[in-house]
Amino acid sequence: MDKKIIVIGAGLCGTLLALRLAQRGHKVTIYERRQDMRTAQISAGRSINLALSDRGLKGLRLVGLENQVNDLVIPMEGRMIHPMQGDKSYVRYSGRTGEWINSVSRGGLNILLLNEAEKTGLIDIHFNMECQDIDFDGGKITLTDLGTKTAVVDSADVIFGTDGANSAVRNGMMAQSPRLRFDFSQKYLDTGYKELEIPPAEDGSFRLEHHALHIWPRAGFMMIALPNLDGSFTVTLFMPFEGEKSFSNLQKDDEILSFFEEQFPTAYAQMPDLLADYRSNPSSSLGTIKCYPWQVNGKFLLMGDAAHAVVPFYGQGMNASFEDVVVLDGLMDEYGDNWPEILSRYQAVRKVDTDAIADLAQDNFYEMRDGTADPVFLLKRKLELHLEQTNPNYFSKYSMVTFREDLPYHIAMTKGRQQDQILMDFASKVTDVNQVNYDELSKMLV
Amino acid sequence: MDKKIIVIGAGLCGTLLALRLAQRGHKVTIYERRQDMRTAQISAGRSINLALSDRGLKGLRLVGLENQVNDLVIPMEGRMIHPMQGDKSYVRYSGRTGEWINSVSRGGLNILLLNEAEKTGLIDIHFNMECQDIDFDGGKITLTDLGTKTAVVDSADVIFGTDGANSAVRNGMMAQSPRLRFDFSQKYLDTGYKELEIPPAEDGSFRLEHHALHIWPRAGFMMIALPNLDGSFTVTLFMPFEGEKSFSNLQKDDEILSFFEEQFPTAYAQMPDLLADYRSNPSSSLGTIKCYPWQVNGKFLLMGDAAHAVVPFYGQGMNASFEDVVVLDGLMDEYGDNWPEILSRYQAVRKVDTDAIADLAQDNFYEMRDGTADPVFLLKRKLELHLEQTNPNYFSKYSMVTFREDLPYHIAMTKGRQQDQILMDFASKVTDVNQVNYDELSKMLV
Repeated sequence: MDKKIIVIGAGLCGTLLALRLAQRGHKVTIYERRQDMRTAQISAGRSINLALSDRGLKGLRLVGLENQVNDLVIPMEGRMIHPMQGDKSYVRYSGRTGEWINSVSRGGLNILLLNEAEKTGLIDIHFNMECQDIDFDGGKITLTDLGTKTAVVDSADVIFGTDGANSAVRNGMMAQSPRLRFDFSQKYLDTGYKELEIPPAEDGSFRLEHHALHIWPRAGFMMIALPNLDGSFTVTLFMPFEGEKSFSNLQKDDEILSFFEEQFPTAYAQMPDLLADYRSNPSSSLGTIKCYPWQVNGKFLLMGDAAHAVVPFYGQGMNASFEDVVVLDGLMDEYGDNWPEILSRYQAVRKVDTDAIADLAQDNFYEMRDGTADPVFLLKRKLELHLEQTNPNYFSKYSMVTFREDLPYHIAMTKGRQQDQILMDFASKVTDVNQVNYDELSKMLV
Repeated sequence: MDKKIIVIGAGLCGTLLALRLAQRGHKVTIYERRQDMRTAQISAGRSINLALSDRGLKGLRLVGLENQVNDLVIPMEGRMIHPMQGDKSYVRYSGRTGEWINSVSRGGLNILLLNEAEKTGLIDIHFNMECQDIDFDGGKITLTDLGTKTAVVDSADVIFGTDGANSAVRNGMMAQSPRLRFDFSQKYLDTGYKELEIPPAEDGSFRLEHHALHIWPRAGFMMIALPNLDGSFTVTLFMPFEGEKSFSNLQKDDEILSFFEEQFPTAYAQMPDLLADYRSNPSSSLGTIKCYPWQVNGKFLLMGDAAHAVVPFYGQGMNASFEDVVVLDGLMDEYGDNWPEILSRYQAVRKVDTDAIADLAQDNFYEMRDGTADPVFLLKRKLELHLEQTNPNYFSKYSMVTFREDLPYHIAMTKGRQQDQILMDFASKVTDVNQVNYDELSKMLV
């Protein structure tokens, strides 16, 4: 016990990890490149929300925050689908009661974790500290204090890199690639995203149903909206960078306005600041990052987005990172203070699962964008909901990934893909769910 | 014509490219990080040889060097396989006459190309110039003169990055990843390599048959040897870094000597400097690098290992790089001076082929290491040689990759893999080639 531990990065994963380590009696120093979000005006400024579900909640339960986080979330029990023509339709995420996902502000949750971390008295958080160099063999890191422009060197028994998709710790491993035989891949989508907003109504209420994740699926692009506590929705347009319907083809004011009016009429009417938001917010890229090994010398370990950045289409990025902490915690139970063993086991058991959620998230982009507008897919979802309502042993792929925190991602993926094939096959042969022989279907799904 | 062109990297690909560009009337500046290998003692020093085959020869023919290169090569007409037990066996690379591969010194070939490049009068080569920074939008590069430690800025109409597997030009693209949506992957093998030597005999002659590539296939590791003009062989041991038979387990003098004596008796007897070579030469890693896009702004283009580093097991790294130049040259014929079009077409047509040779090279590692010791595989090779001798339309996968410079790699791969499945199936059912019904086999291979 009472090892000295450094955590690089005070984002969601890093603060949860530090909090858990402190609860186990370790002394932790966190270095964060950014300013303290509790006191500084963060330039990004916008309330970016995320979908918190069971795997993430399990991580918060581990540190005793399951009740406090309730005040920060808005449950979303299903997808509200806004088709191009016709009425919107509501599809529940689960056929079971008590299963939903939660819209939560990234900043709000991060602040809760930072406050709880400091309360332990075992965690020192240093902001404005940029990691510059890593001496893997010496077990040392060099940082720059961005305020004073001075260099700081620190060392510890264990050093975690939870510094996100552009991780400096991972870049340090990249620089040592041949020696570490560091496998790395980054893969971008042709589609990017831009954040927009549906503000609260004049009376402060929500302008759309707020216990839902709204989707406007279109051919080749889509828009989604998640509710915020203040009555607003964060809206995200996902669209290719190039091509006919693309960011590069949508530049002039009248083009932008008529595009939204035509494609997303139910949202357009609720977006008074559309043009200003569209102009001031960047069109950002979306990519998947995989790498291996995650640990070096039994002393350094990548976790969270630093180890496995995923595209956002399964709403599992944060949940996977929190689950990382749960998995590590289980290994601390098992291997005590044998950190080389903990780190080496961690990467050995965890890699297959984060690879799975990365692949599932890429797949789900196509499902959300194209599938939710496909009659066969919608029928398949109805089959799934019926099965979930009538068969206590049936869980859809989505449910296994989202609600079954007891099932590793790679098992949810393998089993879910098998089920999907069977269900899509059934759905393609009927025009109405009443035509389906559920007994036959249930037998095939065993 | 007469565009100003910069080529970064004066290795095999860069000098062949510059030479061809000059022959087409362009003025070329080459920047090379290393010293001039014609005058400086290159620290590596060892004569590293490569296998030059038809795709590479096509590149040399393009610039009129097909005759001059003849003085630099030693033809290798087959593999000499040294099993653990029993007699060595010789397996020709092709059942046809006139098809062989060539052992050539990397340095010797590079010097030939450098000399020819300078003879054109249109190529300036600057050595000791390290590329530091690339301004893709401004079309400018910043280099450091390693002699004077001063910075040099240069610009051109077109800038090629032929600076090898650790390309500074590619690293510049990596630094701009989100904007360029730059896909990148690097993947290492668990196996590394160490170069050793079989020196010439006392009378200057070769100690082994020199018109062959020698292989000592073993379970999980292997050794190969290629002849050099001076009567020596460059020997390469491929072995895992970790595990029972591994570099990390082979450290003490007596362990090293008894390992070679036991595993490679026919080579061990010919390696008087084994221990000194083993100690002084590094154990190096082997990896595959893929990336995309290769071109930026119609002005910058990655070629050769900078764009596609492969493992050496198909002997195609240099050949693929020379073929890059041939493909680009064809597009210069087609699109004249429209460089944005040339660069964009180049990456669109070429990527699928360099991905194919990368995958084939990884596969061939297992074939060379394990297959050449497998009776079914050896029988399959005999079938192939018989087919090549009797059927003018049959080409093995190896032959298509190595000798059919008219077939793109990706076609050689697809067709070759189909053939291999059929042949291995046939070979697994017989104990002798005489039992095979060649008519039936030939029909299946159509």
